Amino acid sequence: MSVERHFDRDLDGLREAILRMGGLCEGMIHSAVKLVIESDPSLLPGITEREDRVNGLHLEIDELCLNLLALHSPAAGDLRLVAAALKVNSDLERIGDQAVNVAETGCFLSNLPQMKLGDVPRMAELAVAMLKDSLDAFAKKDVELAKSVIRRDDEEDRLKSQTFNELRSLMQSDASTIQRALDMILISRNLERIADHATNIAEDVIFMVLGQDIRHGVVPVDDVGDETRAAAPKSGS
Amino acid sequence: MSVERHFDRDLDGLREAILRMGGLCEGMIHSAVKLVIESDPSLLPGITEREDRVNGLHLEIDELCLNLLALHSPAAGDLRLVAAALKVNSDLERIGDQAVNVAETGCFLSNLPQMKLGDVPRMAELAVAMLKDSLDAFAKKDVELAKSVIRRDDEEDRLKSQTFNELRSLMQSDASTIQRALDMILISRNLERIADHATNIAEDVIFMVLGQDIRHGVVPVDDVGDETRAAAPKSGS
Repeated sequence: MSVERHFDRDLDGLREAILRMGGLCEGMIHSAVKLVIESDPSLLPGITEREDRVNGLHLEIDELCLNLLALHSPAAGDLRLVAAALKVNSDLERIGDQAVNVAETGCFLSNLPQMKLGDVPRMAELAVAMLKDSLDAFAKKDVELAKSVIRRDDEEDRLKSQTFNELRSLMQSDASTIQRALDMILISRNLERIADHATNIAEDVIFMVLGQDIRHGVVPVDDVGDETRAAAPKSGS
Repeated sequence: MSVERHFDRDLDGLREAILRMGGLCEGMIHSAVKLVIESDPSLLPGITEREDRVNGLHLEIDELCLNLLALHSPAAGDLRLVAAALKVNSDLERIGDQAVNVAETGCFLSNLPQMKLGDVPRMAELAVAMLKDSLDAFAKKDVELAKSVIRRDDEEDRLKSQTFNELRSLMQSDASTIQRALDMILISRNLERIADHATNIAEDVIFMVLGQDIRHGVVPVDDVGDETRAAAPKSGS
């Protein structure tokens, strides 16, 4: 096999490993939220089993990336793909951690009288959709989809603050809810962190495709891809 | 200047930028915790000003790393240094975010009657020491110091759980403390996250120096550097 064909095969393998890891994370969040909603701790082992696979892929993908850099010295767009993969890998691993946190807190909650879930199911739905779309954007190099992920993060932040305020009021009016309300606050913060990581992935996709680093608001998301306003691509294109 | 000398100069510049960013983060945590302890919101602008510089360095260091990879195709230990720098960069940026969160919560708290700080100052001291030592380990390629950072993370986790339980009991016994206790719980979680990021940096230092990826417990920290038990270095050495 030629060096170029080895390289293409390795890049395909890298993309495929990222998407496999992303799929595991999506499933973990789904199960963790189901565990909370249905007070069903029997879902925990399936989640921790997938965490082990996510952690294995975390190490494997970093090694794939370093091997690609060492063997093929990629440039321009290929280099940006490898750099994006390193970052997406780290975000996915943290998403897996957050899903486990949701599930573990859900197990504590399942021993207590049920309380209303408020916006938590909506936060979960939004976070999973953002993750799924950020991974689709990575797979299809779809800048518009990545931009739509970034735009949705404000709604998740708003839901997190609203949930926090509602649960604090509930604790203040009824002390018997304190333990459960605290746990729900932790769960809503885990979900908001998942949405943050999906946003990071979307930003990495934009950098990978366009060579534009839009983090920290240096390019407003609505200006992304607009050549008249955007900075020139970095590291070639 | 020869290509080799350009390369060495660029690597030195990268190391120097990471340490500058780390120094800013250390200062931010110090000020944020001082703000909480002294109920002094006037410290906030100095913290957000440093956050802007940290965010600027975050973009700059990623660009330095990609340029190094594109121009010099480093191998073995030099490649691992660049890969570690990419990750340390991301951890430091998140540490800066956490310090800002501590400071902002401290500003809310400063409008409320003071409450006892419990283990929060100790958690802050431990997190700052772990960050400082992880950066020293990076600068000096000191594996033993990196290992000592990783070992201290359990103590930070223990303090976080203890703080959570104490504050929950306080809320349950005196509803007038709910708002303040919630804020202190958030602060203690921010500090614990900072210690986690310092631990990540220490793990990256070990990989950078030894080529051993010890994350997810694949190599117990006490076995690091022990050739009879450890896996062979990856990607050359």
